Amino acid sequence: MNNKTVTACVLVIGNEVLSGRTRDANIHHLATELTALGIRLAECRVIPDVEDEIVEAVNHCRAKFDYVFTTGGIGSTHDDITAKAVAKAFGLAFTTHPEAERLLLDHYGDAANPASMRMAMTPEGAELVDNPVSRAPGFKVENVYVFAGVPMIARAMFDGVKGTLQGGKVVVSRTVSTSGLSEGMLADQLSAVQDEHPHVDIGSYPFIKQGGFGVNLVARGEDEALVDAALVALRQMIVDLGGAPVDGDTAGEVPK
Amino acid sequence: MNNKTVTACVLVIGNEVLSGRTRDANIHHLATELTALGIRLAECRVIPDVEDEIVEAVNHCRAKFDYVFTTGGIGSTHDDITAKAVAKAFGLAFTTHPEAERLLLDHYGDAANPASMRMAMTPEGAELVDNPVSRAPGFKVENVYVFAGVPMIARAMFDGVKGTLQGGKVVVSRTVSTSGLSEGMLADQLSAVQDEHPHVDIGSYPFIKQGGFGVNLVARGEDEALVDAALVALRQMIVDLGGAPVDGDTAGEVPK
Repeated sequence: MNNKTVTACVLVIGNEVLSGRTRDANIHHLATELTALGIRLAECRVIPDVEDEIVEAVNHCRAKFDYVFTTGGIGSTHDDITAKAVAKAFGLAFTTHPEAERLLLDHYGDAANPASMRMAMTPEGAELVDNPVSRAPGFKVENVYVFAGVPMIARAMFDGVKGTLQGGKVVVSRTVSTSGLSEGMLADQLSAVQDEHPHVDIGSYPFIKQGGFGVNLVARGEDEALVDAALVALRQMIVDLGGAPVDGDTAGEVPK
Repeated sequence: MNNKTVTACVLVIGNEVLSGRTRDANIHHLATELTALGIRLAECRVIPDVEDEIVEAVNHCRAKFDYVFTTGGIGSTHDDITAKAVAKAFGLAFTTHPEAERLLLDHYGDAANPASMRMAMTPEGAELVDNPVSRAPGFKVENVYVFAGVPMIARAMFDGVKGTLQGGKVVVSRTVSTSGLSEGMLADQLSAVQDEHPHVDIGSYPFIKQGGFGVNLVARGEDEALVDAALVALRQMIVDLGGAPVDGDTAGEVPK
């Protein structure tokens, strides 16, 4: 733990997400995990399985953010080009990793073939990331972590490395909600509460649900006492406007 | 409809998605809708509610892609800064839109206040995008469409404009799946099928589910006859490898 703000970026690499075939599940999971570690997810990108696009995004993001996590495109088929593209981004040779080779030979035994052994290739000198689900490893080069796209595997890979990540201060988040008040009815007062609590970020998220509408107000910051003070002010504001504050989120519409 | 490839980018603007508080639902919906219109979603970004970041992303993406769709940050509270940032990106004044003003005065009546009327502000000369759910409109400037973040509203706004979008050829997609074959077992043959069908993009998506594993193979392209020919070859490949081809997707793990 340190006191500087630590940032991260998630790169989802996959035509299948862009075409709508697959609903990405990795962004939300990584966002939640990183936030809990005191790492601020500062940007996500979904990009296609195109080498130049991957190279450009990896190089942009690894320079701008403390950590980069990619998901997708590290299987054994012709459309899995992430590992090679990451090697190119770093200007490293794309070679068979001896430890990965051993792992895969152990795992596949007689069924090992050139295609499955392609999954032993990494940028030269990469550190492997364990895959307890299906063995074929991810890897890490400098601040770039390369994970599988299948959510169960991406999660297991993140679990394997998260103890090694250096987070900053964890952001504390508190929510108070109210039904029957719209954003327009409380925006001026909310802005005043924000001005009075400059070290807390106050967000307003309207919801719609059967039978009504309302707002979730979220106070976030690194100093728990300041966040709690802002929450007290938000509750009072709701009462002053004739509403009933409810601690925590009120769920709105459930997206189909 | 025309014959050139038409591209789009989705910009999800929202700290709440990056913190993990909210699971984005707009990317998947827009991906599906755009694909059906023959518009290729070429990139998505999730960025924070920070003016400079929004300006930079909007300017980068509107130059690179035919269409840009933003979601989030157009409510009436202090943290809703998308509309003003889009004005800045275009170098346009940020002013009250007369038609939006009328709409909101009609809707709010005596409850109209300065905060709710802030939602009538757009980049000067913007075209409004109808909001049948809660009235406060989105808008369009050149090729940039600015929608609300609440999925129910974002969808309604997209529905309102989609008849005006100019798509290219619709990409036809066919899937055949098989259980019990891994990617490694079919990768070489799959690569050969890809080589024999250069005008079709073949993707391989492994799945894990209770009791087993398998692969969904997806053939995509603009020429239906070529896609169907690739599908025949994929089915035959599965049979040759001792598997049983199943038309359509086999669902894998369901992300929590």
